[in-house]
Amino acid sequence: MESVTIKKIHENPEAHMQGKIAVAGWVRNVRASNRFGFISLNDGSCFSPLQVVFGEDLPDFREVGKTNVGAALVVEGTLVPTPQAQQPYEVQAELIRVVGASVPEYPLQKKRHGLEYLRTIPHLRARTNTFTAVFRVRSIAAYAIHRFFQERGFVHVHTPIITGSDCEGAGEMFRVTTLDLLHPPRTTEGEVDHGRDFFGRETNLTVSGQLYGEAYAMAFGSIYTFGPTFRAENSNTPRHAAEFWMVEPEMAFAGLEENMAMAEDMLKFLIRAVLAEAPEEMEFFNRHLDPGLMERLENVLENRFARVGYTEAVRILEESGVEFEYPPAWGADLQTEHERYLTEMVYQKPVFVTDYPKEIKAFYMKENGDRRTVAAMDLLVPGVGEIIGGSQREDDLEKLERRMEVLGLSREDYGWYLDLRRFGGAPHAGFGLGFERFLMYVTGMGNIRDVVSFPRTVKNCNL
Amino acid sequence: MESVTIKKIHENPEAHMQGKIAVAGWVRNVRASNRFGFISLNDGSCFSPLQVVFGEDLPDFREVGKTNVGAALVVEGTLVPTPQAQQPYEVQAELIRVVGASVPEYPLQKKRHGLEYLRTIPHLRARTNTFTAVFRVRSIAAYAIHRFFQERGFVHVHTPIITGSDCEGAGEMFRVTTLDLLHPPRTTEGEVDHGRDFFGRETNLTVSGQLYGEAYAMAFGSIYTFGPTFRAENSNTPRHAAEFWMVEPEMAFAGLEENMAMAEDMLKFLIRAVLAEAPEEMEFFNRHLDPGLMERLENVLENRFARVGYTEAVRILEESGVEFEYPPAWGADLQTEHERYLTEMVYQKPVFVTDYPKEIKAFYMKENGDRRTVAAMDLLVPGVGEIIGGSQREDDLEKLERRMEVLGLSREDYGWYLDLRRFGGAPHAGFGLGFERFLMYVTGMGNIRDVVSFPRTVKNCNL
Repeated sequence: MESVTIKKIHENPEAHMQGKIAVAGWVRNVRASNRFGFISLNDGSCFSPLQVVFGEDLPDFREVGKTNVGAALVVEGTLVPTPQAQQPYEVQAELIRVVGASVPEYPLQKKRHGLEYLRTIPHLRARTNTFTAVFRVRSIAAYAIHRFFQERGFVHVHTPIITGSDCEGAGEMFRVTTLDLLHPPRTTEGEVDHGRDFFGRETNLTVSGQLYGEAYAMAFGSIYTFGPTFRAENSNTPRHAAEFWMVEPEMAFAGLEENMAMAEDMLKFLIRAVLAEAPEEMEFFNRHLDPGLMERLENVLENRFARVGYTEAVRILEESGVEFEYPPAWGADLQTEHERYLTEMVYQKPVFVTDYPKEIKAFYMKENGDRRTVAAMDLLVPGVGEIIGGSQREDDLEKLERRMEVLGLSREDYGWYLDLRRFGGAPHAGFGLGFERFLMYVTGMGNIRDVVSFPRTVKNCNL
Repeated sequence: MESVTIKKIHENPEAHMQGKIAVAGWVRNVRASNRFGFISLNDGSCFSPLQVVFGEDLPDFREVGKTNVGAALVVEGTLVPTPQAQQPYEVQAELIRVVGASVPEYPLQKKRHGLEYLRTIPHLRARTNTFTAVFRVRSIAAYAIHRFFQERGFVHVHTPIITGSDCEGAGEMFRVTTLDLLHPPRTTEGEVDHGRDFFGRETNLTVSGQLYGEAYAMAFGSIYTFGPTFRAENSNTPRHAAEFWMVEPEMAFAGLEENMAMAEDMLKFLIRAVLAEAPEEMEFFNRHLDPGLMERLENVLENRFARVGYTEAVRILEESGVEFEYPPAWGADLQTEHERYLTEMVYQKPVFVTDYPKEIKAFYMKENGDRRTVAAMDLLVPGVGEIIGGSQREDDLEKLERRMEVLGLSREDYGWYLDLRRFGGAPHAGFGLGFERFLMYVTGMGNIRDVVSFPRTVKNCNL
């Protein structure tokens, strides 16, 4: 008999009450007396389990009653209404086959486990309520990203992971090599001979697909990338991972205004998608992990995001009378405490801060008329601070060349990037959203290790 | 004035014939006389350009006539029908602004360029007809993959890129490190001290997400991965890249039959999506690159895929009377010449070959009752040979342990993978589709370098 998913049963129980059904899933819990027993069965198709009841007339009644938590079962029987019980229906089993046994030492017994412990078993933790919710939301949000951009005519570009250049002339990178580390080939000068490496040169893992994305925006108009990026930063914090996914749209014939509008639309679209498609999961987060979550997300959805220039923002911070750990000052980057004050106290909703001093921003950002600031934007949200960063890009060839010279970026590495300005370099703008940061925001999970399937962080690449 | 995309105009020209419009795009071609001129404008939103006509009353008439190919323009004017001309409508320009100049040396003039030359300018080639078609199809196919699996309740899992294990106990891998290659730290035994590397151990780039995907299939039932994978193979061929994307679904409570059915459904879904959503691009490939393309794809869509056991397939090959370069023999892998003979001559449609000798397949494949073969499946398609490979996975803990011991795979590295069998290891199956191989098949492009934005191959990581 072909089995039906528990999700389909929950969506329309009546339709499954005619005739027999088969359900395949894993035991979350089992209780048995001498004459009957109950199994809470979950098949991963949805958050809620299905109750299975079995009586002493079941073949192998005693063995089934002793089934270990975690075992994989195929259950055949009938779905019947149970109006007087806690759950409105259950499966009365006629046959239960254990197709994948478990053992009493199965680590995920019916008690709550700490997140820290669960991090030690990343291959199993997706079977718990918390992580089934997290990773279903992750899948829903990833798909929503594609829907958002594809429906708006953006072309999805897979930018390279292995790269010869470092995107922003900054950021610590991972080396990619096939050289023998113990005995690397050497040049006559005694240096490591990367000419004999796999690619015939030094290569690294990408820190951003943006520059490549710009090349494609000059062909397709509007593009987005969505792929893994890497930072070899020695930051052992709850917000840093060495490997994480980024969404980076890039739009030709667009400036900062269009960029902000797109970022706001995207963020609202993603939150709406998650709330609509994972209602049980979001309810679970709100009840068990982060009681302010729903309210915070609804605040985002209901308000038009505010906009303030960096210079004005610094003035507001200076005049706030608040004793910040880092006193705000024009020319310095905003600290998280400043960002949160602005979005939580001043605006009480998401706010774009624009036009930062050029010295604290990346080389590719477009210089403003004042020649001191660049057309950058950071989106700050209550509870987190910065969640999106973007800018209009410098499309003036000479200005870009001068800026790169000042910063010591090599023409050899970036000649192709300058070509984009030489040959029809339309004004363009884009932004980046760290996907894990977004997931932390939307689920309320406080540690980036808990929104990544197999997290990679300093000194940790265990599985 | 807000500009409209050329795609929107082509979809519904009448709707844009009331009042003025603005269009922003790049010059593909310009012809000008003393009194009027024509510009072929492309904005990347669709394959077909838009014709812009301008007269001597245009401000800067002379300058516009000298615009270089590749320049970025904003055109304002009216869309008018031209029933007597080759194209049914055109924009009569009232204002043309050059927002990104080009130069006479722009490499993509209005002549055909060889694919080989275009490979030297990967940052520009997406602006040509061929590559705008390839990379739009790539985006459409990528999105179709997500739609196919999401609509069927599969959960998308981002499996890790940096990994401590090597998936199949085979395949040459790229090392990921932050150690100083010139002076790596050493242990007292004189070995490289990976304890002082970023992750405190040796790490590599993933060759497949499958094993991680299996862990998630045991939580969610049906999952898929879609991400970059890497092979450091020294293969300088038109079909090998060091970095490529793989789609890897994995289904719990499924065997080889369900696996084959899913692979067939997926392949047909993807081809249908590309034909429906990129008709102009596919027409272009069929006309200019690969005249048999459409026929081949329709053959795939119209036929139920055949199925044959490996043993039977070898018998057919042996009895074929064909002089193969490599004589077929039970126990040896099928060569491309064998695969193509089976799918093109014998079945004349796609065919699944199943139940290969276990010695030539990966350790994780389920042993059949004969103990000589495993529940593997390869899908062969006319014109290419193998395009999908998959199997039911070994869910018997003891058999898997024995097989790993024979092959010398370490328990330390794979203990977590064995856990999946210890704790409710349901029968499960899955397959992998190399995304670039699929793109080559569906576009007719003969070189994998031409379906990747910035290809990485032996000795080549130029941009």
